[in-house]
Amino acid sequence: MTKPPNVLWIMADQLRFDYLSCTGHPHLHTPHIDALAARGVRFSNAYVQSPVCGPSRMSAYTGRYVRSHGSTWNGMPLRVGEPTLGDHLREVGARAVLVGKTHMTADAEGMAWLGIDPTSEIGVRVSECGFEPFERDDGLHPDSPRQNWSAYDDYLVAQGYSSENPWEDFANSGLDDDGELLSAWLLKNSRLAANVPEEHSETAYMTDRAMDFMREARADGRPWVCHLSYIKPHWPYIVPAPYHDMYDESHIVPPVRSEAERETDHPLLRAYHGARVCRSFSRDHVREHVIPAYMGLIKQLDDNLGRLFAWMDREGLSENTIVAFTSDHGDYMGDHWMGDKDFYHEMAVKVPLIIADPRPEANGTRGLVSDALVEMIDLAPTFMAALGCPPKPHVIEGRDLTPVLHGTGGVSRRYAISEHDYHWSDMARTLGQPQEEAHTVMLFDGRWKFIRCEGFRPVLFDLETDPAELEDLGASEAPEHVQVRARMEAALLDWSRRHHTRITATPTVLARQKMAAETGILIGFWDEQEYQEATGKAFDSLSPVGRG
Amino acid sequence: MTKPPNVLWIMADQLRFDYLSCTGHPHLHTPHIDALAARGVRFSNAYVQSPVCGPSRMSAYTGRYVRSHGSTWNGMPLRVGEPTLGDHLREVGARAVLVGKTHMTADAEGMAWLGIDPTSEIGVRVSECGFEPFERDDGLHPDSPRQNWSAYDDYLVAQGYSSENPWEDFANSGLDDDGELLSAWLLKNSRLAANVPEEHSETAYMTDRAMDFMREARADGRPWVCHLSYIKPHWPYIVPAPYHDMYDESHIVPPVRSEAERETDHPLLRAYHGARVCRSFSRDHVREHVIPAYMGLIKQLDDNLGRLFAWMDREGLSENTIVAFTSDHGDYMGDHWMGDKDFYHEMAVKVPLIIADPRPEANGTRGLVSDALVEMIDLAPTFMAALGCPPKPHVIEGRDLTPVLHGTGGVSRRYAISEHDYHWSDMARTLGQPQEEAHTVMLFDGRWKFIRCEGFRPVLFDLETDPAELEDLGASEAPEHVQVRARMEAALLDWSRRHHTRITATPTVLARQKMAAETGILIGFWDEQEYQEATGKAFDSLSPVGRG
Repeated sequence: MTKPPNVLWIMADQLRFDYLSCTGHPHLHTPHIDALAARGVRFSNAYVQSPVCGPSRMSAYTGRYVRSHGSTWNGMPLRVGEPTLGDHLREVGARAVLVGKTHMTADAEGMAWLGIDPTSEIGVRVSECGFEPFERDDGLHPDSPRQNWSAYDDYLVAQGYSSENPWEDFANSGLDDDGELLSAWLLKNSRLAANVPEEHSETAYMTDRAMDFMREARADGRPWVCHLSYIKPHWPYIVPAPYHDMYDESHIVPPVRSEAERETDHPLLRAYHGARVCRSFSRDHVREHVIPAYMGLIKQLDDNLGRLFAWMDREGLSENTIVAFTSDHGDYMGDHWMGDKDFYHEMAVKVPLIIADPRPEANGTRGLVSDALVEMIDLAPTFMAALGCPPKPHVIEGRDLTPVLHGTGGVSRRYAISEHDYHWSDMARTLGQPQEEAHTVMLFDGRWKFIRCEGFRPVLFDLETDPAELEDLGASEAPEHVQVRARMEAALLDWSRRHHTRITATPTVLARQKMAAETGILIGFWDEQEYQEATGKAFDSLSPVGRG
Repeated sequence: MTKPPNVLWIMADQLRFDYLSCTGHPHLHTPHIDALAARGVRFSNAYVQSPVCGPSRMSAYTGRYVRSHGSTWNGMPLRVGEPTLGDHLREVGARAVLVGKTHMTADAEGMAWLGIDPTSEIGVRVSECGFEPFERDDGLHPDSPRQNWSAYDDYLVAQGYSSENPWEDFANSGLDDDGELLSAWLLKNSRLAANVPEEHSETAYMTDRAMDFMREARADGRPWVCHLSYIKPHWPYIVPAPYHDMYDESHIVPPVRSEAERETDHPLLRAYHGARVCRSFSRDHVREHVIPAYMGLIKQLDDNLGRLFAWMDREGLSENTIVAFTSDHGDYMGDHWMGDKDFYHEMAVKVPLIIADPRPEANGTRGLVSDALVEMIDLAPTFMAALGCPPKPHVIEGRDLTPVLHGTGGVSRRYAISEHDYHWSDMARTLGQPQEEAHTVMLFDGRWKFIRCEGFRPVLFDLETDPAELEDLGASEAPEHVQVRARMEAALLDWSRRHHTRITATPTVLARQKMAAETGILIGFWDEQEYQEATGKAFDSLSPVGRG
């Protein structure tokens, strides 16, 4: 048996699917990510299970839908006992290792209740969504008392960048001409150079840490999945020189939006439009300031990945490492009069996904662009398959993509599904939606995108006739649209009714259930003759076990 | 503050709602249960969350629907970390104690994974569905190697009833005229007297054990919920003298069934009709043999409860003990050409439910019959309320019935819901239903009973015009029926889409989420002025925390 490959699972944060040159951006050149696509498969229809960091990631790390794992928003702890990719991999002696962000919140109450010490080996794992944390850094430290500093804060100080909050004052601020500190929390400062040299930025630091891990892993010897999880190009939008100055207004793709969209009668969409971040990004001068920084962050990421891939080549690691590249969700950047993420237009919910498998079985698919409808939850089972972990269809809800990677088959999926819980937001209060009802779900079949909005009419887009998603057909009375909405509602019910929580149906349990009938429990037999006719055995009152 | 009451939660197994004199049986007199109803509230519309032991009980013990806890069939372990009534009660220093049956299967894999020793205090609790096991006995021991004997087996031997399997040979067999042992697994032997005196039967033994517990609890001093959980009148159907001889053919209520029912075109119903246990109970001579034994078992149970209640009166326990009486599901007994349970006609899914609250607040409702639509999952929150446990709406899906008991309010519920998973059965194979799709769900609104059958058309009964549920309107094209089915499908989708798994949304977590915006994370502010206008505070680049 050959040695299983390792997996380097790279995740950017808030990276739109269309801000790479291989996905069509006209001005942003990402040659290293493009090269990865050229030696692997690029999926052009990959959807995240929630258009916001936390739940999207919990789905990625568990291979399960948001409704299944229950961590529906940032900071909602992933319950103790929810099975993760790391837990499955450990069963075959492989490691799941974290370098960077997960957005995981530990279930402290659940652990206390089961007597699990959060500082024990199991407690740390449970607290890190099943990963062994080589480096954990969620990349947001606005309020960072010294005792809670990240390793990156300490690193900055060690490099001579000393302050009360190095993360904020150096990595996420700029300087004006007078040397005054200007925070990147304010969008107007996005075009400044970050107050840190590129080689000490978060992106460079995390890249270095991935190399550190791979060096350590070589000595360890066990196969691994390394989740290299960058915070950028997530806000605060600011990038070190020279990237801060590479792009300007002339490189900005025009916004995808129409005046008609602003006239929507949909209460939830109107509430989105009224939110501060959407109002901000609807203004041209905000886009003109932020988008060049966003592009710079992506360019910087691409260069760091180039550095990483070259190092892996030199170290002989590339030949046995599957490299996956993706993002946890997109960023509206003013499209559809919206900012940030949290809804389901393509730029929010669709992500770049590239998987380059060095194994000879994948030679026939290098450079392939697959338009299969795939979901972020497909990565966990794909990595499990690569590392020889048995499939667990009662737990894992994603599909193994290996057949696509190896050109032996497709992905059988009728709908991509994504969910969002906005119970925490001002919108829920403004709209009077109770906590339990403040949620939405998207069903996309490759043409029709249907968004059920609890308490309101649905939203519907036809991406065949309206790829820009400018016309909401959610209230259209055209028979075709009425029919599509009914079909989508029915499909949603089918999906919702599935056994998302029946995770203890292991093969052992199912075998035990089949055997129950053979252990002497006899239901509905009138007499010995019926028993003998049905079973071919004589009934013996004194030997219930022997009867089985 | 007065001392909180204790709760004695009595559960019979497989007891139909209509086999008590207080619920209208013409020949079966159950004066002790009737007396309980006279001093409490009897609920005439109480539904279990699954018409089969295991999942119904897991719902009862967690206060959560089957789709939420995921233990969809007998033997499907309740996952580690699924919160139970016992877990909630412990938080306020109260005990949840088991005397009898739970049908719980421990999640051995889950425990191993989290490093929980099954023999530790927490491990034992996790293995017993949150209960502290004073006596655990699921009451079915056909295959009982000596090392796995129940305490009741040992008790029988200590009383002189010695054999390889005392449970089967004495408590669940009879003797013919020649003294030959005849097993109650065969229905033809149901009318024999069990081969054990009444005072050593399972029902009497478990009653004695409840007294033992209450004596022990008095010394312990902590408040408690004691779950006294009888196996009978569940099969094997056999009862000791004199109960075996109290009823005969003349006491049997005619079957609820019609010839037209046998002509159903519904594939799932046809499969049920073809199952052995249904074919058996469709035969009059089977009903004539079994029903008198079933009635005898209930009569014996009532007498034992009379003995228990009298003892509690003498011991001064009654005045501070809420007594609830119910069952985990019913028994078809040949009605609708069916046997055992597993579907949703009234005799399978509706159960007796009586709650007698000794507190003065309940004085105004003694003897009340409430027709409120209630569910078995309502008991956990009702008991929690009585013992001073805070409500946990993010976990507990049932409703607190205290307002009904105290005459201060009703139960706001539009639908009672029940689910069944038949992946394990021959029917799934015969019908070609894949494991994931072999399930059904009932929605009942007090008039219309709608049963969604994955893969097949629904079943629909109108209990107003057809209280006997003889006419399946699931395929009716009458506009009213089409409309009701659409409404029920929509209600099912509403319910399915709820956050059944979002159980970590504790008040602490929700407060943390509200605070997130105040910890220096600023989204969508253009400049200092916008910040100040929105927040009323000056923006200070150097003091992100102070900004909050």
